[in-house]
Amino acid sequence: MPLSAALHRVPAGPVLAPHPLPGFARATVDGYAVRAADTYGASEGLPGYLDVTGAVLMGTEPTVTVRQGTAVSMPTGGALPPGADAVVMIEYTQQAMPGTIEVVRPVAPGEGLVRADEDAAVGADLVPAGRPLRAQDLGMLAAAGVTELAVRARPLVTIFSTGDEVVPPETTALRPGQVRDATATALAAMVRDAGGEPAAGGIVPDDQAALEAALAAALPCSDLLVISAGSSVGARDETASAVARLGPPGVWCHGLAIKPGKPTLLAECGDVPIIGLPGNPRSALVVFRLLGVPLLYLVGGCTMPPPEPAVRARLGRDLASAAGRLDVIQVRLRDGVAEPLFGQSALLSMLTAADGYLVIPEDATGLDADAEVEVTLYR
Amino acid sequence: MPLSAALHRVPAGPVLAPHPLPGFARATVDGYAVRAADTYGASEGLPGYLDVTGAVLMGTEPTVTVRQGTAVSMPTGGALPPGADAVVMIEYTQQAMPGTIEVVRPVAPGEGLVRADEDAAVGADLVPAGRPLRAQDLGMLAAAGVTELAVRARPLVTIFSTGDEVVPPETTALRPGQVRDATATALAAMVRDAGGEPAAGGIVPDDQAALEAALAAALPCSDLLVISAGSSVGARDETASAVARLGPPGVWCHGLAIKPGKPTLLAECGDVPIIGLPGNPRSALVVFRLLGVPLLYLVGGCTMPPPEPAVRARLGRDLASAAGRLDVIQVRLRDGVAEPLFGQSALLSMLTAADGYLVIPEDATGLDADAEVEVTLYR
Repeated sequence: MPLSAALHRVPAGPVLAPHPLPGFARATVDGYAVRAADTYGASEGLPGYLDVTGAVLMGTEPTVTVRQGTAVSMPTGGALPPGADAVVMIEYTQQAMPGTIEVVRPVAPGEGLVRADEDAAVGADLVPAGRPLRAQDLGMLAAAGVTELAVRARPLVTIFSTGDEVVPPETTALRPGQVRDATATALAAMVRDAGGEPAAGGIVPDDQAALEAALAAALPCSDLLVISAGSSVGARDETASAVARLGPPGVWCHGLAIKPGKPTLLAECGDVPIIGLPGNPRSALVVFRLLGVPLLYLVGGCTMPPPEPAVRARLGRDLASAAGRLDVIQVRLRDGVAEPLFGQSALLSMLTAADGYLVIPEDATGLDADAEVEVTLYR
Repeated sequence: MPLSAALHRVPAGPVLAPHPLPGFARATVDGYAVRAADTYGASEGLPGYLDVTGAVLMGTEPTVTVRQGTAVSMPTGGALPPGADAVVMIEYTQQAMPGTIEVVRPVAPGEGLVRADEDAAVGADLVPAGRPLRAQDLGMLAAAGVTELAVRARPLVTIFSTGDEVVPPETTALRPGQVRDATATALAAMVRDAGGEPAAGGIVPDDQAALEAALAAALPCSDLLVISAGSSVGARDETASAVARLGPPGVWCHGLAIKPGKPTLLAECGDVPIIGLPGNPRSALVVFRLLGVPLLYLVGGCTMPPPEPAVRARLGRDLASAAGRLDVIQVRLRDGVAEPLFGQSALLSMLTAADGYLVIPEDATGLDADAEVEVTLYR
């Protein structure tokens, strides 16, 4: 992958520094390269005197050596000339006479410069494996001359929708009872955000054989299969049966103690994980965020997923929850107060109105108004 | 823009619902469509009896009307038949004899269903203007049949690097004194992350006329100009002079009370904002994140930028800061403790090692160890 296209991609292995960086000792101030010992004891009252024997130009190799009693003029970023072990800032010098400066403060060896390998020694990790590349990581690789690198392939995620009532979003006029497929579009976006490559599996009717055939065809070219199941109980059963018949190891679980999201199906065929999501779009998106996104990161070799935005807020009202069940509550944030949004699982508008969500853990029976809560923010 | 390509794009205006959503009253449970009044007073001991006069199929228009004393079988998501005003869950019914059910709990009108315009009424805001589209926003638009929408153009950001020592990242063998351009690559990534389109202005030598010509050529096709200035004092002055000569209104400020980032230049030519960044890559990236990214969001019409990930942590050690100056400190996070990283502005490795940064505001003279701090996380 060329470096310029590698933002947020996951390095396949650690990338090691091929050369020391910056590669030469470099001034970090404008001033004079000196031998630090020549400045010891210098003060305003008793300055040290040094002969200026040359100047270093930016981007060029120094042509003059610093010897005892001499100094060489330096720009910030210039290469330290041989013989020098420190750079005294121009602010602590003044011209005594043409060709001679007074130094009014001592410098220690190493002062006013970075060492040749201070940014990276040869063989040092420039970026770790498994962490998506951030802007500064690309900068570091550019500095090291690494303009191509091996990254993990984006996991290919095939997304199916099922349901006799579901029609493509392009459908202009709906017949009564029909709904446009919202889930597949939203899931594709979540897959992209988590570093995956979505593939449209399409809409499959509520028919076990048709679904089984569609899933079997997609399996060989997918790293993850996602099915938003039909919302009716019969459609859910057909999804489970079709997945079970795909092959071993099969269904891991069918039903989770999550609200919304109870009818979730987790399965595997060969080494391809399969997630069956509830039919309600809101439930499907809540579950995919909680379970699908972390799974997708793992499938893509991302062991250090990017941090999620979150804030602490005060809860605006009491929230009840059944013990033994994890609840996901959408909230709006206003002046540090998290106001829960309530409504049917079927309503997508709760997700578009929400700034984020909070989780009531399994062991809690609710949260009191004014409790401090952590809100994960949608972005 | 097709909906499938609109993730994180900024809608040019609010997108309004062209039709009510879901468009028909819809069951949210599996059960029976009823007239709620027919269930009043029903209990386990004294069930109500209803004749089942038909069944609604998924995705089809109901063909039967619910009259007094009758019920129609419903799948979750099915369209409510005429005459019904509630859906009683199958769990609260049982078959009394073929064609007749017992109802053991009353339902209120509106129970077990969503109204035809409960997700969105005609003309309701589906998504607001100015907020980058999130996964669920795309889902909502798909549900409404909005498969294309007007979005703000990505602002074009031309990025220049200056400095006689700076060479392209592709340069395999460096001559002593040369450094590869890290800043332009990292800035381009930050521009992408903030919804902009980076354009490579290239590396310009430390020469006022050359820089002025390069900037003037880029101005007409840029929405924002960014220059990472040469690091030496002379190069910084040349950047400021070149920018000042571009045209009115000119330089707004040169020098900011930020560490790192003091030599920052903010200017404007015509209506194109110009940011001159410090020569040190780390300083440049810190300043661009604080000033350039918010500016870029504004230029791109994004009035509700996506939330930044952040966590609260305990500070691992005392931090000093001069009053009147904002300090940006990179930190690593370990078990809730923010450990400050210290080093020269010239070192990029501090940014690659960091998990995030904290800010010591202008009016503070430092922070004590164990203080609670907010760490903005890099992603």
